[in-house]
Amino acid sequence: MIPAMPGHTIDAFHRGGFWLAQPKGSGHRVGMDALMLAAAVPSGFDGRLADFGAGAGGAGLAVVSRCPGATVTLVEQSPEMAQFAAATLALPQNASLKDRALLLIADVTLAGRQRAAAGLADNSFDFVIMNPPFNAAIDRQTPDGLKNQAHVMTDDLFEHWIRSAAAIVRPRGGLAIIARPVSLAPLLAALTGRFGGARIVPVHARADEPAIRIVLRARLAARGALALCPPLVLHEGADNSFTARAAAINDGEASLFGD
Amino acid sequence: MIPAMPGHTIDAFHRGGFWLAQPKGSGHRVGMDALMLAAAVPSGFDGRLADFGAGAGGAGLAVVSRCPGATVTLVEQSPEMAQFAAATLALPQNASLKDRALLLIADVTLAGRQRAAAGLADNSFDFVIMNPPFNAAIDRQTPDGLKNQAHVMTDDLFEHWIRSAAAIVRPRGGLAIIARPVSLAPLLAALTGRFGGARIVPVHARADEPAIRIVLRARLAARGALALCPPLVLHEGADNSFTARAAAINDGEASLFGD
Repeated sequence: MIPAMPGHTIDAFHRGGFWLAQPKGSGHRVGMDALMLAAAVPSGFDGRLADFGAGAGGAGLAVVSRCPGATVTLVEQSPEMAQFAAATLALPQNASLKDRALLLIADVTLAGRQRAAAGLADNSFDFVIMNPPFNAAIDRQTPDGLKNQAHVMTDDLFEHWIRSAAAIVRPRGGLAIIARPVSLAPLLAALTGRFGGARIVPVHARADEPAIRIVLRARLAARGALALCPPLVLHEGADNSFTARAAAINDGEASLFGD
Repeated sequence: MIPAMPGHTIDAFHRGGFWLAQPKGSGHRVGMDALMLAAAVPSGFDGRLADFGAGAGGAGLAVVSRCPGATVTLVEQSPEMAQFAAATLALPQNASLKDRALLLIADVTLAGRQRAAAGLADNSFDFVIMNPPFNAAIDRQTPDGLKNQAHVMTDDLFEHWIRSAAAIVRPRGGLAIIARPVSLAPLLAALTGRFGGARIVPVHARADEPAIRIVLRARLAARGALALCPPLVLHEGADNSFTARAAAINDGEASLFGD
């Protein structure tokens, strides 16, 4: 048994396919969001992937755990969170994956030469995945003024993150993003003129409740029309257990778009 | 039996709740789209409703057929289509509804004083429903140049139709719109700063296929966040029969948002 760092836990994901060192009892712990985001990458993917806002590295490691030909660059701005990603990569349980994972401390909202200088060169990745940290800002119960500010910040955030993704992926390169339904308008606005052929999977906690998340996948400069796919339902039954599809995604045994 | 006008048919909807005179064998015949749009209006609605692009009057009459306290103004730009709406209102089968329905030949894309002069006064309706006629333009297999043009026209169309809806409904008045998923971005952009608290129901022909339509409902100047509701599935089984929910909507026995 590996002793946990103080204030941290070490947890298995994908039935032991990869492990994460992550902060104990904070809002930044890896959960279903990271696993659903990772599941948006096709199982046959075999190129360079960037994980924007990687945190402890959950989504990025879930991709390399499921896709044997993939390499990932975990991009995290916060040195505090990057510590966890570094500890994750140092875990002996992840020895078989660590040669396919890099950690980059960088601000994904940078533009132009500053972004390239920070390690995110134009046209250098095949796929970008992102789970923008806007959720907390919207969740907070705030007066209208602050809430409006949070919304404005969120709109800018999508614009800046997706601008960077469009710069660093090659033509026809992929983008996957997990967000809340409330962010659909700024998200689609930020995609316009950059990524096309978008497919959206709404995610519902239960079949009869409104969606709690959307997972969107698109390709740089693709022309296809936006498609709204059948939803993913996470839980069912009186005991609120995982549906078969959610369990397969949780365990790294299925992709979200069936490819 | 009532003889049909030449080139027309007279058809029952809502199990005989209302009838329509409509052109034979054209793309403008009333179908599930109009009935789903009408079903977005709460069953207890009892105010003035405008049906933009009313055609033969299907969606508007479906509302007054289901909502005893509702009155409708069918707004149609094309005199050719307005003929059918007029014939519909003259049908003896619709005698019990015709006192609650008006027909207005007007262009809903007008603005300012021109719009008011055309019969669409500011702040004079409680609800607007619309099925913008953009589908045909996008459906056509056209070269990229023309297709792009059609998309641009579509974006303008949402902007102009929703601008007019925002002008003519009272504060907190309702809007319902049926559109294709491909139109989600321009539709949400046109709502921004006007209608809020939007709820979207994706409509799937079958549960395992991408959505073919979205039905959106929102309120003028409301602040609520966008919600993505559980989808409506139209058909099921080997014989592709209506699901119970689709049949109830088709028959005017259920509303789409459960209210």
